[in-house]
Amino acid sequence: MAGNSFGTLFRITTFGESHGRALGGIIDGCPAGIVLDEKAIQEELNRRKPGQSAIVTQRKEPDTVEIYSGVFEGKTTGTPIGFAIHNTNQKSKDYSHIKDSYRPSHADYVYDHKYGFRDYRGGGRSSARETASRVVAGAVAKQFLKDIKVTAYVSQVGRLKLETPYQQLDFSEIEKNPVRCPDPTMASQMEEYIKSIKKEGDTIGGVITCVIQNVPIGLGEPVFDKLHAELGKAMLSINAVKGFEYGSGFEGVTQKGSEHNDQYNTDGTTKTNKSGGIQGGISNGMDIYFSVAFKPVATVLQGYDTIDKEGNKVAAQGKGRHDPCVVPRAVPIVEAMAALVLADYTLLAKGNKI
Amino acid sequence: MAGNSFGTLFRITTFGESHGRALGGIIDGCPAGIVLDEKAIQEELNRRKPGQSAIVTQRKEPDTVEIYSGVFEGKTTGTPIGFAIHNTNQKSKDYSHIKDSYRPSHADYVYDHKYGFRDYRGGGRSSARETASRVVAGAVAKQFLKDIKVTAYVSQVGRLKLETPYQQLDFSEIEKNPVRCPDPTMASQMEEYIKSIKKEGDTIGGVITCVIQNVPIGLGEPVFDKLHAELGKAMLSINAVKGFEYGSGFEGVTQKGSEHNDQYNTDGTTKTNKSGGIQGGISNGMDIYFSVAFKPVATVLQGYDTIDKEGNKVAAQGKGRHDPCVVPRAVPIVEAMAALVLADYTLLAKGNKI
Amino acid sequence: MAGNSFGTLFRITTFGESHGRALGGIIDGCPAGIVLDEKAIQEELNRRKPGQSAIVTQRKEPDTVEIYSGVFEGKTTGTPIGFAIHNTNQKSKDYSHIKDSYRPSHADYVYDHKYGFRDYRGGGRSSARETASRVVAGAVAKQFLKDIKVTAYVSQVGRLKLETPYQQLDFSEIEKNPVRCPDPTMASQMEEYIKSIKKEGDTIGGVITCVIQNVPIGLGEPVFDKLHAELGKAMLSINAVKGFEYGSGFEGVTQKGSEHNDQYNTDGTTKTNKSGGIQGGISNGMDIYFSVAFKPVATVLQGYDTIDKEGNKVAAQGKGRHDPCVVPRAVPIVEAMAALVLADYTLLAKGNKI
Amino acid sequence: MAGNSFGTLFRITTFGESHGRALGGIIDGCPAGIVLDEKAIQEELNRRKPGQSAIVTQRKEPDTVEIYSGVFEGKTTGTPIGFAIHNTNQKSKDYSHIKDSYRPSHADYVYDHKYGFRDYRGGGRSSARETASRVVAGAVAKQFLKDIKVTAYVSQVGRLKLETPYQQLDFSEIEKNPVRCPDPTMASQMEEYIKSIKKEGDTIGGVITCVIQNVPIGLGEPVFDKLHAELGKAMLSINAVKGFEYGSGFEGVTQKGSEHNDQYNTDGTTKTNKSGGIQGGISNGMDIYFSVAFKPVATVLQGYDTIDKEGNKVAAQGKGRHDPCVVPRAVPIVEAMAALVLADYTLLAKGNKI
Repeated sequence: MAGNSFGTLFRITTFGESHGRALGGIIDGCPAGIVLDEKAIQEELNRRKPGQSAIVTQRKEPDTVEIYSGVFEGKTTGTPIGFAIHNTNQKSKDYSHIKDSYRPSHADYVYDHKYGFRDYRGGGRSSARETASRVVAGAVAKQFLKDIKVTAYVSQVGRLKLETPYQQLDFSEIEKNPVRCPDPTMASQMEEYIKSIKKEGDTIGGVITCVIQNVPIGLGEPVFDKLHAELGKAMLSINAVKGFEYGSGFEGVTQKGSEHNDQYNTDGTTKTNKSGGIQGGISNGMDIYFSVAFKPVATVLQGYDTIDKEGNKVAAQGKGRHDPCVVPRAVPIVEAMAALVLADYTLLAKGNKI
Repeated sequence: MAGNSFGTLFRITTFGESHGRALGGIIDGCPAGIVLDEKAIQEELNRRKPGQSAIVTQRKEPDTVEIYSGVFEGKTTGTPIGFAIHNTNQKSKDYSHIKDSYRPSHADYVYDHKYGFRDYRGGGRSSARETASRVVAGAVAKQFLKDIKVTAYVSQVGRLKLETPYQQLDFSEIEKNPVRCPDPTMASQMEEYIKSIKKEGDTIGGVITCVIQNVPIGLGEPVFDKLHAELGKAMLSINAVKGFEYGSGFEGVTQKGSEHNDQYNTDGTTKTNKSGGIQGGISNGMDIYFSVAFKPVATVLQGYDTIDKEGNKVAAQGKGRHDPCVVPRAVPIVEAMAALVLADYTLLAKGNKI
Repeated sequence: MAGNSFGTLFRITTFGESHGRALGGIIDGCPAGIVLDEKAIQEELNRRKPGQSAIVTQRKEPDTVEIYSGVFEGKTTGTPIGFAIHNTNQKSKDYSHIKDSYRPSHADYVYDHKYGFRDYRGGGRSSARETASRVVAGAVAKQFLKDIKVTAYVSQVGRLKLETPYQQLDFSEIEKNPVRCPDPTMASQMEEYIKSIKKEGDTIGGVITCVIQNVPIGLGEPVFDKLHAELGKAMLSINAVKGFEYGSGFEGVTQKGSEHNDQYNTDGTTKTNKSGGIQGGISNGMDIYFSVAFKPVATVLQGYDTIDKEGNKVAAQGKGRHDPCVVPRAVPIVEAMAALVLADYTLLAKGNKI
Repeated sequence: MAGNSFGTLFRITTFGESHGRALGGIIDGCPAGIVLDEKAIQEELNRRKPGQSAIVTQRKEPDTVEIYSGVFEGKTTGTPIGFAIHNTNQKSKDYSHIKDSYRPSHADYVYDHKYGFRDYRGGGRSSARETASRVVAGAVAKQFLKDIKVTAYVSQVGRLKLETPYQQLDFSEIEKNPVRCPDPTMASQMEEYIKSIKKEGDTIGGVITCVIQNVPIGLGEPVFDKLHAELGKAMLSINAVKGFEYGSGFEGVTQKGSEHNDQYNTDGTTKTNKSGGIQGGISNGMDIYFSVAFKPVATVLQGYDTIDKEGNKVAAQGKGRHDPCVVPRAVPIVEAMAALVLADYTLLAKGNKI
């Protein structure tokens, strides 16, 4: 399992299992001289934390980040920023339903085949708990990015879909409700819906939309490393994600070129933004926006049939404290990954011209 | 503009502009001992070639690949495979409408800002002509993959959408019609529609679906380099792509966990395949399938308003021989990129267990 | 300061400053299923530890490694192995002689210019304390390598040079003396010499020779990533190293081809081994051996003239507890880096043939 | 055989066998806007060309480089620069002495074991002919580097060693003699010596020294990617190289710290330069200098005993037109690799500070 790093110049590598001693990571390539607000990092982590509201998992994980290196007298030194989040809630539990059989649509089965065995406790490395490290790194990236503003929000839960374009939304509403949807009415409906799903012991999918503002022109390495290709990979690497679209997205395929093209204003901005702020893989200075589809959480608190290692049929019962819908807590993760991509491409862009 | 490489162990690097002397690339990391069918490589390239039918661009590019190295006595040697496709049709043309102003929703504007100037002839490096090199590399990857079969087809043009699940389609129909849609009736409708769009001097978007069969269990590096994340990046790096989804995709968000989960058969296969052949970023042995959204080609053969370098308004007129719909010719490109990902992940998977 | 990673498939990334909270790293790509002896890791770290003998620094750094992840029920899981070594001895010290002026032949001056400022405590990131993390990773690599045996020893201190070929040495003597020289007589001389240098408040350079036995044929990626090129980079990345040679090395340039060539035995081994176990960048199954030159430690316990940040002349005085000769403690570091290269190239070699 | 790329941001990938259709490469990451002198590139290639003088191989390889992309109206565009050198002299030859048996101290044996078979014609990929592509890339890097001046020269042939420090040499003498030694008297002696070696049908080793002037302070990524570590890897990747040292090198180990340390002048320069222009892996603005040891060419024009694939003893006879001493023609190769490292580290350094 190589592949625990992301980024080229601004680069994060993470480690840690759901119920191991600690999770953490190393941020390599963060430039020197950034006044680092460690409290702001912890706050981002708190946005992802379980137990925030009635519609997320009630597990208790304090998730306190310790920064080990790379900061001196309050500023980044240009050296790698090592950090860890110690697990405090991983007491001995009953994992027999996980240990000896494969949960449907989980990674249990493929891990056993790929590695020969697995750390089954809480999903081990395949658990979304790994994303806590991403949020820490993303919080550092956000501080590096300064004026570039990354904002994500929940735009769909099940069939409840917010159709309002992001330009007409009030982003200050996002953190005011547990769903993290900027439309208060829709947020209430989503909240009620998630509660009802939870009552059934079931789960539901959702969509997160992300908007990146104040992007300079010229970020993105055309051809294979197009800006939207890297954003897509970043999002698809988040647990439970099934799809990614930017700008006009899947809807754009139904349009004609004559209506889809973005006409220029004389200042180089465009009258419409179906391009989603990216042309030919390079940012054009307009807002970047994209959507990310999350499947329903696979762990349902219901009985189910499955197989064990030997291929015998077994009956099992989902248990534990799981999210009925993953998108509210995934909002800071989407932002973190977007910030990491933007930070990396900002550094990459420095060498394009003499 | 670094970023012209794709893959870690099975790795392609490409070069070349639309109207430069030659395009080409280097395939590095292809294992030794593969009996290489060079004719099959040329045939893949012919599938991408302009001028194949009435619904694609009528440009004449013979696109003959010359292989310079890495093959000896008909077999790959394990050394890099260098190749070139010489441009033969790049005679002096009238580029004044491109040189001095920015085509809407093209990369002209951002290239000028990023690099200070640009090779404006036919779009230079931002032209989809670059994908010819990808098709060559993908054709080599296909021969390396042997039993793993990669098949792409057009599943949507504008609002004409093929709803039939891929399992019920006859893939042998794909190459029998110019649209590359495996349903003959739908193919005819799409063909007529594209012709009508062409007559208007307009363009239309579309969707390509890709199916990968006979995939062994265990391909994919979990966390950042999940198999579907790399497939997503590969697809999003293709010109004009706006979205990617795999398995249940965007539709999956509307489902409950209890209905979305794939139940196991006793042999480890699953009764349904909403996972799309990938769980936790690792292949589970079921078919992998995904869809890729292409926007309408930006070049329309109509008059339009735009700006020049100095920000003056100018009126321009689209001209040249362009595709009214990009998806028929993009089918081999999608397959090539998928094959490259699978080849790379096959090599990466070799070191997972002792 | 990106560049804190080493290796492609078996990959180490380190973090940490000399007097920060903790040092540590992430080992990514270690295959699953290795029974990991954590005590053996700590023992390697103890070989590098200060205060082992009268001829090394008397600083007290317990250097206890904590492994956070990647191991389950005593075996590696294939997931990243995160670890930390907490600093316990970094109490407030008087750094004024370092903080405000530049120590000659240290990295102080260039860090200030490159990053704008620096963590001056104990040299910060430029301190050889970073190599503790390498030793941990190397100890894991050694356990992965199993039969491939990596042995380093001190072959020169100042002008005291062990001329005996490695084949005639008894490696079991190495750890029996504080110099880590396998020849007991020479070891005594070196020890006395280092003591006399220490008494002067001065320092002296040395050479470490490393031998790798039981190497399979075929490790090494020819052209840029030749096996000896990567070994050379690994060694040159160790603090204070000024030179690297393998096989016949610098002495080999004085020989004629007819005497330098290694003639084959019928089993494919060679009668001589001037090649140093590597031909064309690829291991040939013979022992690999190389030498690494270390300059004298720059910190001398004497008065010296230097400059401050503003370019004013200042008189300073070396102090602290430093090694009079770095090579005895560098032996496990050389072994660690060699083991990391071999582990990485073992994984890389898996994909060469079909 | 991945590993055909070198560099991170300024990156070269090469392809091609000694007697294949063509060699060449792709330079990726060269910034846009450099006025590229293609004639100067060809001139560098001519310095490496066979047949220049009586002391090098008399093979005839015109080695004309064709540039396929990445340049427009005389300037680099920021897109990859693809190039090829077509082989014109690879007519059918008698390779029976190479095909069926292993030349001592060549890569024949290990290639067969690693890849299962090999392109035996002229050594295939293991031939130093590959370095022609490096010289092309290095020539582009030199033009990018502008004021940073890279100069290499022959400082030793056999036991004939030029002891004069580089500061006292007249670099304008280098190209005036076929040995490329800046001391005319020593050059004559070396020339005579090489001629006598050639007459014997034998070969001899040598040393190349390289000096890099006008280096800005701050190039180099400390820890694993120290500037001298990358230079070392670059040099060790050149065919026939057995050793690398920089600054005081192997001689430095015999010195005490008090004499080895470089004292500062008030302008930050140092009174001596035993550091070799690099401290802690980062350039300090002083000249960088290093030496590279080349073994004698393995092909001697004499009879020798060896084995065939089945391990049978066979008698063979060296033939062909080979260099009696590789260093005169290796001078431009050393310069090319040094220029590539400096170009890459110049781009890497751009992102260190905010």
